[in-house]
Amino acid sequence: MEKKSIAILGSTGSIGTQALDVVRSFPDRFEASVLTAANSVDILIEQALEFKPKLVVIINELHFNTVKSALATVDCQIIVGEEGLIDAAEFAEVDIVLNAIVGSAGLKPTVAAIKSGKDIALANKETLVMAGELVMGLARKHNVKILPVDSEHSAIFQCLVGEENPIEKIYLTASGGPFRGKTTNDLINVTREQALKHPNWAMGAKITIDSASLMNKGLEVIEAKWLFDLDVSKIDVVVHPQSIIHSIVQFEDGSMKAQMGAPDMRVPIQYALTYPSRLKNEFKRFNFLEYPELTFERPDMDTFRNLALAYEALEAGGNRCCILNAANEIVVDAFLKDQVSFLGMSDVLEETLCQLSNSESLSLDDYIAFDKESRLMARDLINKLRN
Amino acid sequence: MEKKSIAILGSTGSIGTQALDVVRSFPDRFEASVLTAANSVDILIEQALEFKPKLVVIINELHFNTVKSALATVDCQIIVGEEGLIDAAEFAEVDIVLNAIVGSAGLKPTVAAIKSGKDIALANKETLVMAGELVMGLARKHNVKILPVDSEHSAIFQCLVGEENPIEKIYLTASGGPFRGKTTNDLINVTREQALKHPNWAMGAKITIDSASLMNKGLEVIEAKWLFDLDVSKIDVVVHPQSIIHSIVQFEDGSMKAQMGAPDMRVPIQYALTYPSRLKNEFKRFNFLEYPELTFERPDMDTFRNLALAYEALEAGGNRCCILNAANEIVVDAFLKDQVSFLGMSDVLEETLCQLSNSESLSLDDYIAFDKESRLMARDLINKLRN
Repeated sequence: MEKKSIAILGSTGSIGTQALDVVRSFPDRFEASVLTAANSVDILIEQALEFKPKLVVIINELHFNTVKSALATVDCQIIVGEEGLIDAAEFAEVDIVLNAIVGSAGLKPTVAAIKSGKDIALANKETLVMAGELVMGLARKHNVKILPVDSEHSAIFQCLVGEENPIEKIYLTASGGPFRGKTTNDLINVTREQALKHPNWAMGAKITIDSASLMNKGLEVIEAKWLFDLDVSKIDVVVHPQSIIHSIVQFEDGSMKAQMGAPDMRVPIQYALTYPSRLKNEFKRFNFLEYPELTFERPDMDTFRNLALAYEALEAGGNRCCILNAANEIVVDAFLKDQVSFLGMSDVLEETLCQLSNSESLSLDDYIAFDKESRLMARDLINKLRN
Repeated sequence: MEKKSIAILGSTGSIGTQALDVVRSFPDRFEASVLTAANSVDILIEQALEFKPKLVVIINELHFNTVKSALATVDCQIIVGEEGLIDAAEFAEVDIVLNAIVGSAGLKPTVAAIKSGKDIALANKETLVMAGELVMGLARKHNVKILPVDSEHSAIFQCLVGEENPIEKIYLTASGGPFRGKTTNDLINVTREQALKHPNWAMGAKITIDSASLMNKGLEVIEAKWLFDLDVSKIDVVVHPQSIIHSIVQFEDGSMKAQMGAPDMRVPIQYALTYPSRLKNEFKRFNFLEYPELTFERPDMDTFRNLALAYEALEAGGNRCCILNAANEIVVDAFLKDQVSFLGMSDVLEETLCQLSNSESLSLDDYIAFDKESRLMARDLINKLRN
């Protein structure tokens, strides 16, 4: 069997390193031909020395010389700067692009990969949140598979295997994050450290804050709409604190299928890379006796307004989700720097959406322009709040 | 679309009447061409007047004249006696045979249907428990589908749709029945009325008693082995008192799929009749907020010995499962008549297995002979216990 050649965009992050765990476990199946990182130069070098990629991209130019000299013995091309992500996505011998970049920087490489006819294992939520309609349209046109990596979307995707029957509803499960059950009053003074303590998943800082505010689930609702071509009324969220059932599909006969297992991102990562096959691995198996109770509750959208904002943005369409996503990147960054409060994040999002008017029929460049404008607006609003 | 013509063997029982509910809901899709009953003559007549089958079978000869005169206006053939089940299974214009007969009487009609090349919606557990290897071999030979109707096996079957990947393990869920959590001491004096109170499912008396003793789950373990071609070590039972998750498949990548929903047998019955399609129906949908907790526990095989006996019989192979099943029909009947105690049922089963020696390479006639012999033995042992 020929090896599958993978480009891992964002190889030093949480998803990227776990993807390399998978590649390491199946040396006969996979090779990591392309690795990219923004700033984590030490990890990138270590990965490149181990996996011997054909192309390495380091986005921050300051690190070019370090990377170059460290990889002198590795027969690989080294590209510097954000445009290198496009080279990475289009790299000739690559079969599948794992897009594990965090944030809106993931959009352009996804589009480049689609246009080069490469399947995409998509961990970058923002691609579909910003420009889902455009991206899915392109994927259909170029006959390219978009394989979800998020545990929730992978769950839905797995439940749909072999089913040509219409979906009546999907339930995306949400852990509820560290502040589940809290009231608005409880959340006034929560700190960055408290928000960064996710009960079940070890993930990057951005997604962990988004989990605490339920924005992560909001972004997933938007992503699900485009991935599975669903009306928003068919997408529901249920809080399930144990994160064992990763999501559920309900069909029109009332039957539901759920995908479940121990919370381990390597499972959906591996599935996206091996689909439709499943390869035997040694990951810890789920044991019912360790989880004698699986619980479910309604998400509290009054307290966690970001989820409600995401539903509203999706209903309204046009540039709304793009703006929400861009502004959210700014507010989360500001929250991590103690520049805005936990609840203040929602205020800024709401105000950014209010300030920028909606528009329809957007091109890729339009989305990127709205993304920029929203960031400036959100930043501006945060600065005003601080003065 | 041409209508699917269905033979419903055992149309007046719990599964049979629910299958007719499904037929009634989709008059353009299905017709009930064959109905059969053992003794419930009034229900059979009512059904025949409504569904206008081409063939009606009444097993108890005493009811022939009643049926004949009641159906004088219906253009249908009426056959009397148990052999009529074979005519029913082979009836020319039938596309699919729903075998909803209770007990070992279901075996011969299944074999007849397979040999006539008809797909089978199988609700009769005993077919596979008695002669699973033989029946599955015949089904492969005649290229006939065996579509499970039991909610657990339907769940596994649904989870396997589109999956060509090996199964690592299946978990059959068990409600635990009315005596879940009881000790052997608690069970010494339990009555028929207590045993007949199933917490979640409204079913016939035989299967309800089997649920209380966990024999039902034992028979399902055996059935699962043959349906899904699994080694017994890959079949596990987990007690799940809410009966919402109907069963689970674990694949070799650690991913698990579960099928779930409100406990309603019409869902798996409908699926067996419409597979691989799912038809939109009005059955009540599952709502997580009505079941905020799904719980799981290990089955207590020391107290509920029947489940352990089933695993042992399956491990041993040969005639063991056939004997266990036949003896169990006798002890349940005796329990319902207050001739044996709840715990006494397991004693008789164990002793019957002990008294009859094992043998291999069995023909259909061999299985039927062992079935008869076990019944006599079990009956004899019960009589001895009473004197």
